[in-house]
Amino acid sequence: MTPVEYLEIQKKRVNEYLDAFLLGEDDAPESIHRAIRYSVFSGGKRFRAGLCITAAESFGGDIDRVLPVASGIELIHTYSLIHDDLPCMDDDDLRRGKPTLHKVFGENIAVLAGDALNALAFTLVAKPGDCRLIRILADAIGTEGMIGGQVADVEAVERDDLTEDDVNFIHTHKTAALISASLEMGAVTAGAEDEELVVIRNFGKHIGLAFQIVDDVLDIESTDEVLGKDVGSDMEQDKATYPKVFGLDRSKAIARDLVEDAVGELDSLRHETGMLKGLAQFVISRVY
Amino acid sequence: MTPVEYLEIQKKRVNEYLDAFLLGEDDAPESIHRAIRYSVFSGGKRFRAGLCITAAESFGGDIDRVLPVASGIELIHTYSLIHDDLPCMDDDDLRRGKPTLHKVFGENIAVLAGDALNALAFTLVAKPGDCRLIRILADAIGTEGMIGGQVADVEAVERDDLTEDDVNFIHTHKTAALISASLEMGAVTAGAEDEELVVIRNFGKHIGLAFQIVDDVLDIESTDEVLGKDVGSDMEQDKATYPKVFGLDRSKAIARDLVEDAVGELDSLRHETGMLKGLAQFVISRVY
Repeated sequence: MTPVEYLEIQKKRVNEYLDAFLLGEDDAPESIHRAIRYSVFSGGKRFRAGLCITAAESFGGDIDRVLPVASGIELIHTYSLIHDDLPCMDDDDLRRGKPTLHKVFGENIAVLAGDALNALAFTLVAKPGDCRLIRILADAIGTEGMIGGQVADVEAVERDDLTEDDVNFIHTHKTAALISASLEMGAVTAGAEDEELVVIRNFGKHIGLAFQIVDDVLDIESTDEVLGKDVGSDMEQDKATYPKVFGLDRSKAIARDLVEDAVGELDSLRHETGMLKGLAQFVISRVY
Repeated sequence: MTPVEYLEIQKKRVNEYLDAFLLGEDDAPESIHRAIRYSVFSGGKRFRAGLCITAAESFGGDIDRVLPVASGIELIHTYSLIHDDLPCMDDDDLRRGKPTLHKVFGENIAVLAGDALNALAFTLVAKPGDCRLIRILADAIGTEGMIGGQVADVEAVERDDLTEDDVNFIHTHKTAALISASLEMGAVTAGAEDEELVVIRNFGKHIGLAFQIVDDVLDIESTDEVLGKDVGSDMEQDKATYPKVFGLDRSKAIARDLVEDAVGELDSLRHETGMLKGLAQFVISRVY
């Protein structure tokens, strides 16, 4: 099975799980439930959930145990996109090929939908009854993780003196922290040992950084149609990207090296890691 | 000890705990840590934390076990106030006698500070290692709890056809859900039995609703100086309040009845409930 085929299967599982878990569009207050479903089912590729499930399966874990956790991670990712797109943040009009949530439901509902998804995610991640999962997720999305990266990202806009360290800080926090946590949480649900968690975390940090670098590259080289969002918006907003600091070619080379390092890390594990390696390759080969 | 004296002691404990837990103003990114501390230490009375600790102590619980949970609840409350005050929500300039967060740090940092506090709260609530606490909190602040109430609140503005059911829905969800959860979580950390949790939850729903009704009343009868926020803003924004639907006198009578019912509920418990009853009385006697 190719990584893309594998991701499609996990995506279907996650979407079915979330469809059953989330309240319906007729449940009061209707607007928030419609808004949540609009964003959650707008066609994400569920890459983070896929990584989480793959990590669990690599360590012999049970799909029923990891599925709520993987689905919760996608709710966190969705909330972060909703708040990122707000007028006071990136002010984006298009996301996954559709108008952004605040464009359709208003800014207040967009703020509240993000807030609700943040909480709902923890309901799901609590399901296996292992509080380590809560701590890993909360740390990954707090000020020493995703939000820390978001803040640095917002503050770096229009800065002329950006260093390699600055953009590295932004990308490792904004993106790699949650990707690494997704893998670690999957491994935790499968009962992986502490030293195995260290390996999987490092693997995640490497492919997570590569993922964001490729995102930066695609924002320059892809099209609105393929990407489903406003291409060129990073440059338009003068955002801190790898291509801005390292140039396009060196950015691509760094992403490739990161994936190579990540794949190498897995050699120390005594488990089946073929699909993890495949997903690492997918990070640099993806076009959407 | 009077309830006010008791609350002062818990407030000091919670503030010390949070001061040690939260990152410093010099930690990167500095702006978000300064923003978080600005909001968290702006002088809240820590009523929800006080309820949580009192519930734990009533059931013979340990202060070290409940303190992180009580402190986490205050982070949730702080996040909800930050997002409530945003221009796209209530658009308030004053909170606890100081300019609201977005007025000082900008809207983007205010959104992100709220998001970060939401996650940090779960780190704290996970500390006792009991995932029931996560579920209770997440349910209380999701679309069937606090956020559901917020949405209904936002959508009720300027409506002329508000019913008693509408304002009851808003208040029980927006305010009573988290207050009830605070008490239940305290009781859970102390190992209370399921039937005891039902009692404490009902007690919490009653005093939580009374608390929001008194808030509505104070918005009419108090002053900016005493309350630390813009008095009269509910009426100015034509918000859904108990006085708007029931009138001022009947609202006060309902709040008194709710507290009386709440106190009566506690009689079925075989534990020391003196301070819980005192805090219930405080809800209707408070002036700030």
